[in-house]
Amino acid sequence: MTAESMDELVALAKRRGFLYQASELYGGLQGIYDYGPLGVELKNNLKAAWWRSMVYERDDVEGLDCSILTNPKVLRYSGHEDTFTDPLQDCRACKSRWRADHIEDGRCPNCGSDDLTEPRPFNLMFRTAVGPIDDGSSFAYLRPETAQSIFTNFRNVLDSTSRKPPFGIAQIGKAFRNEITPRNFIFRVREFEQMELEFFVEAGTDEEWHERWVQERMAWWTQQGVSPAHLSLYHHPAEDLSHYSKATVDIMYRFPHGVEELEGIANRSDFDLGSHTRNQDDLDIHAKVMPNPDSSVRLAVHDQQAKRWSVPWVIEPSAGVDRGVLAVLNEGYRVEQLDNGGQRTVLALKAHLAPIKAAVIPLKRNHEGLVARARAIKAELQRLGLGRILFENTGNIGKAYRRHDEVGTPMCITIDFRTIEEDDTVTIRDRDSMAQERVSVAELGDRLRGMLAASDSASTMTAADDGA
Amino acid sequence: MTAESMDELVALAKRRGFLYQASELYGGLQGIYDYGPLGVELKNNLKAAWWRSMVYERDDVEGLDCSILTNPKVLRYSGHEDTFTDPLQDCRACKSRWRADHIEDGRCPNCGSDDLTEPRPFNLMFRTAVGPIDDGSSFAYLRPETAQSIFTNFRNVLDSTSRKPPFGIAQIGKAFRNEITPRNFIFRVREFEQMELEFFVEAGTDEEWHERWVQERMAWWTQQGVSPAHLSLYHHPAEDLSHYSKATVDIMYRFPHGVEELEGIANRSDFDLGSHTRNQDDLDIHAKVMPNPDSSVRLAVHDQQAKRWSVPWVIEPSAGVDRGVLAVLNEGYRVEQLDNGGQRTVLALKAHLAPIKAAVIPLKRNHEGLVARARAIKAELQRLGLGRILFENTGNIGKAYRRHDEVGTPMCITIDFRTIEEDDTVTIRDRDSMAQERVSVAELGDRLRGMLAASDSASTMTAADDGA
Repeated sequence: MTAESMDELVALAKRRGFLYQASELYGGLQGIYDYGPLGVELKNNLKAAWWRSMVYERDDVEGLDCSILTNPKVLRYSGHEDTFTDPLQDCRACKSRWRADHIEDGRCPNCGSDDLTEPRPFNLMFRTAVGPIDDGSSFAYLRPETAQSIFTNFRNVLDSTSRKPPFGIAQIGKAFRNEITPRNFIFRVREFEQMELEFFVEAGTDEEWHERWVQERMAWWTQQGVSPAHLSLYHHPAEDLSHYSKATVDIMYRFPHGVEELEGIANRSDFDLGSHTRNQDDLDIHAKVMPNPDSSVRLAVHDQQAKRWSVPWVIEPSAGVDRGVLAVLNEGYRVEQLDNGGQRTVLALKAHLAPIKAAVIPLKRNHEGLVARARAIKAELQRLGLGRILFENTGNIGKAYRRHDEVGTPMCITIDFRTIEEDDTVTIRDRDSMAQERVSVAELGDRLRGMLAASDSASTMTAADDGA
Repeated sequence: MTAESMDELVALAKRRGFLYQASELYGGLQGIYDYGPLGVELKNNLKAAWWRSMVYERDDVEGLDCSILTNPKVLRYSGHEDTFTDPLQDCRACKSRWRADHIEDGRCPNCGSDDLTEPRPFNLMFRTAVGPIDDGSSFAYLRPETAQSIFTNFRNVLDSTSRKPPFGIAQIGKAFRNEITPRNFIFRVREFEQMELEFFVEAGTDEEWHERWVQERMAWWTQQGVSPAHLSLYHHPAEDLSHYSKATVDIMYRFPHGVEELEGIANRSDFDLGSHTRNQDDLDIHAKVMPNPDSSVRLAVHDQQAKRWSVPWVIEPSAGVDRGVLAVLNEGYRVEQLDNGGQRTVLALKAHLAPIKAAVIPLKRNHEGLVARARAIKAELQRLGLGRILFENTGNIGKAYRRHDEVGTPMCITIDFRTIEEDDTVTIRDRDSMAQERVSVAELGDRLRGMLAASDSASTMTAADDGA
């Protein structure tokens, strides 16, 4: 189904507390968003699903969580200081500044003048002075990607864990790019979050691993509820590749504003570790790297049989968290016509991504017996550790169902007089089918576990199914 | 027990992959650290425990996750532009710069000259230019605390959730302060993480809520394994309080370098919402606030009975994530003398905080049958969703036990020939008692669940106990 326009998603996100414009009460900050009460849960659930599939379920990946402030040398040798740029042109008439590819017919989009400067490279990295003396001598960059700190910690991770290729290092975290024209809601923003894996392999096995990771990542996005019909692969033509990249495949998603990149999977050769290692000349590095007299650490592995050091190659699946949130919001969004002539908005998120797993609702607001039982059931279900369970004391069941449809809550649990006076059963109501069913309170835990197990086999299983 | 010095913790943290100095291979970046493979799990587990206790287990708190880049007006009206400063003095002789309270006897610590400037305020906030034109006209601060974006989103959260005081908004995230002299490992750093709750209450109920939150937070730290004997409360004397603060109580912890603040719980009156609201003059604000002609939003609640708008008061429990990690590392650390004359290092972390919940170890490395059964058991346990389970194929059980003692893994599971040839039982070995026990594979799930339930009643419960 999906939304018909980005505006529908933006409106829902604001109204229901998924996303707000940052610093909105002071006019906002362009290209920056805050996640609201439901957005933070959805985002955290998506990140947790990635971490589970990357770090917990595999036996060949370690995690990291590194700093945002980054020593400039890291970004010098990575190539970002030289090449992480957009071309800009200034209008000499009105003094405005534009991305070169946004100027059509050689005229200023603001005043129409054709008196423009030649395009000059503009670096997209944010920088900030560090320490008490602000004379430019001591500054750091806000990292433009999480990848670099994985490379610079390669030796630390080897030393702490005894890993050998093939193995990977995963990181989730914020990154920053001073985009000239942020746009399309949370698709292109200045502050965003990434989920990046750097997977280190022996040269010669790189093509096979690249292909495997493309397949794995397609399967993962499908597991998050993204329809395969809205996903496609884009193989970058050889002539468009960065000099260090042997191949790059993008997973493209049909966003409301168009088909664009959701994740990129690159074969980066030995460029990254080769760029940051000391003793480059001893290491037979395949990629063309900048000479590095500053690094104090050898980023290579020792092959005991061949008695030599070699620099691993890197396969990098790099996904945007915010783009992922936008994709699953869009995939879940639908407006349904009801039999009674009305309509409802549903966010059919996979249960393991839903911000609220179940809402527990007493039939009457503030009725002592109903409220007490509902609170107790909420607390019991919460203790199962399956995510957020909401106690909702609003007293209007129909409205509550509609609201929870709209925010993606897969199960509503209504506590009524039969619950407290007769047989301790409750009504559970399914978001997607709207079907209602009477079940005993004792069954609720298994129902919730089963629902989440069906949504994501990795998240949890019912006691009966776990086989342990 | 705890460590005898910070050096012991620093050495363990580096060796075992809890913490590394950021950008280390290029000489580091002062006051900035990276979390390694085990550190990221420990930190995430601590944050998850806080989020569970604040957002999931209560019925009166919502979460947020806001941007780091912040519109300067937010930090102007919060008072940070004017008052978030340290006094600095320059040495005219050697041109070095010092925090005034680090200069003893009026002489430069570097060259001994007494030709020093008067102390001048130095703002601790990092700033960065935003957008293509770097002329100072467009910049953002890196937030110095997560609290402000909770205040500026107060109206958004009300509109999305229909909350009314008393209720709270919780946030976990990075914050940045340009400390002149970062020190004491991850205690005082330039990039850090906070767990902050802003709890909004009616004026007049603030003292009672303040007291309640102090007790709740003390209990929570104890639940994380911090000994009450190492915690104390510090009541700020009235004359030391900020002008807007009615009372502040710090939870002090006996860190290796001394007794210092782990968390602060402040009664902030109506200063925060009063500072950021529009129409200040109509709102009978108690605190002394800067006139605010810029805000476009009324940050107040309507009392339908009294027919007037009032600005809620704020109780703020504000904890440092990194300080928390340091505290639980220190609390868990012990060197034990063994009966055989040797010794072992143990990190007796609470199970719900342990980076690895269980290690599954085949008795012989690379033995096909043992390895296959161990992998299958690891996968089954991982599916329970209880945290990271490690498959460890090293073949030296004694060494594996010692290593897992040192990183805090509460349970080791050894797969031997009896497992695969006789009765499908395994040896489980307890980190703290070193006791070994033979249990059937079918029991492992319940054992793990029980261990985690005992560690933190909130995290999960055994199927038999859940009562649902």
